[in-house]
Amino acid sequence: MKLVRYGNPGKEKPGLIDDNGQLRDLSAVVGDFGGSQLGDAALAKLRKLKTDKLPLVKGKPRYGCPVANVSKFIAIGLNYADHAAESGMPIPKEPVVFTKAVSCIQGPNDPVMLPKGSVKGDWEVELGVVIGTRARCVSQKDALNYVAGYCLINDVSEREWQLEHGLTWDKGKGFDTFGPIGPWLVTRDEVPNPQKLGMWLDVNGKRMQTGNTKTMIFNVAKLVSYVSALNTLEPGDIITTGTPPGVGMGIKPTPVFLKKGDVMTLGIDGLGEQRQEVVPFKI
Amino acid sequence: MKLVRYGNPGKEKPGLIDDNGQLRDLSAVVGDFGGSQLGDAALAKLRKLKTDKLPLVKGKPRYGCPVANVSKFIAIGLNYADHAAESGMPIPKEPVVFTKAVSCIQGPNDPVMLPKGSVKGDWEVELGVVIGTRARCVSQKDALNYVAGYCLINDVSEREWQLEHGLTWDKGKGFDTFGPIGPWLVTRDEVPNPQKLGMWLDVNGKRMQTGNTKTMIFNVAKLVSYVSALNTLEPGDIITTGTPPGVGMGIKPTPVFLKKGDVMTLGIDGLGEQRQEVVPFKI
Repeated sequence: MKLVRYGNPGKEKPGLIDDNGQLRDLSAVVGDFGGSQLGDAALAKLRKLKTDKLPLVKGKPRYGCPVANVSKFIAIGLNYADHAAESGMPIPKEPVVFTKAVSCIQGPNDPVMLPKGSVKGDWEVELGVVIGTRARCVSQKDALNYVAGYCLINDVSEREWQLEHGLTWDKGKGFDTFGPIGPWLVTRDEVPNPQKLGMWLDVNGKRMQTGNTKTMIFNVAKLVSYVSALNTLEPGDIITTGTPPGVGMGIKPTPVFLKKGDVMTLGIDGLGEQRQEVVPFKI
Repeated sequence: MKLVRYGNPGKEKPGLIDDNGQLRDLSAVVGDFGGSQLGDAALAKLRKLKTDKLPLVKGKPRYGCPVANVSKFIAIGLNYADHAAESGMPIPKEPVVFTKAVSCIQGPNDPVMLPKGSVKGDWEVELGVVIGTRARCVSQKDALNYVAGYCLINDVSEREWQLEHGLTWDKGKGFDTFGPIGPWLVTRDEVPNPQKLGMWLDVNGKRMQTGNTKTMIFNVAKLVSYVSALNTLEPGDIITTGTPPGVGMGIKPTPVFLKKGDVMTLGIDGLGEQRQEVVPFKI
């Protein structure tokens, strides 16, 4: 299933995209896509619905993040060997983990606002993993059973704030609007192999990133297992799994960063596409 | 006011500590202490209650974290010059910001469980700041107006996971049970000067940390202002503001770390005390 949340910010309703690509409303069926609604039992119930009987949504509503009430938004750094190289960092021996503030989460096509004085805004197309069942110290072998599904994420980053303002990365990763997620939460039954997904990102129509999840250093199962030993993962928690090469910081000889009016478009096979316009800082 | 949440984990009820130190139930008055309930208007209403008419709670219930539904648990590193020195780190030019996973939050006297194989568990008594009103890019001058109140926090840390497992600190800071908070949320009207609070921490009855918030490098107003420019702060978000000297990692010539059966006790003037027994890892 392709699950969505649509409508104005903070007032999103649950829905799904049917086999014909049409948006159907699920408000009468589920409260929202968060917590226990993401578990296997709840998703199995949804799967039994006759989607052609669900109300069609007219028009072209905004999409929000397809997961409600995310409690943790955990990010993996340098998880593609060639991206580590372009960043001038060694290939990690174990997953690099940092945090994106949950307040940066937004819909897939909402504008991205650079922070005050920003000169090093950057893009990162990533595969997002949405937890469906509470996971603590789960084995790599079992890990994917705790996943509700997958989604497209732009791990928007500000490199000056990430790398030049102290000892940790979180400052440059969590600015408001730095977490576009969606459009869809694609349930895991429809992603038989999360390690075989092509991904791309354009800036102003020019291809900047091309990659495939098959070149991850640590695969999704390893990441879920690893992170679940650091923190208990709750339903609705999201792990964003790192980006392939082609970020602005890595461009030689001169890095390229985001500026007002730039448009990022990105996609992952089967997980849909995003489009964000870059807008300048305002209070 | 000294606001509390008492009862079994996940089923806490709101209450307050009256002028005689007695626990009174607030279930009939407020739903819980989170979100808009932490704003100035809501707290002013509570302040008008005749506390001697509120139901007394019998017995000695467990206390939970006094804030419900914390969306961000943001931590400041190296914010006391002498602690930076004992950690072998330079005095920061601007606040060092990292993240504690919200899933590590627990009551003030709940046991602390070391992660699997841990040999470098450590303690950090800290002043916690609870946001009461949404704050985005607020000035230092106005910052304290966005604070609901203050609380005691043990920023439990695992130094190997913080410093020896990759490029960021978050891994060593967010293990389950690593965030004892409380017992009380003391509203800001009762903490006229958050930069004049004595603080201490004992391990097995031996004094390890003695400090005072007057020696912070960046004061609370600066921290709230600074962090509010990184992320919009929501009501119920918590900033823990760094620790004074005396952590186990800093003991010369040989660092001392937590082991099974150790008992940490800690306190801050006017904010109450905590006690945690250290228990070994179990699934």
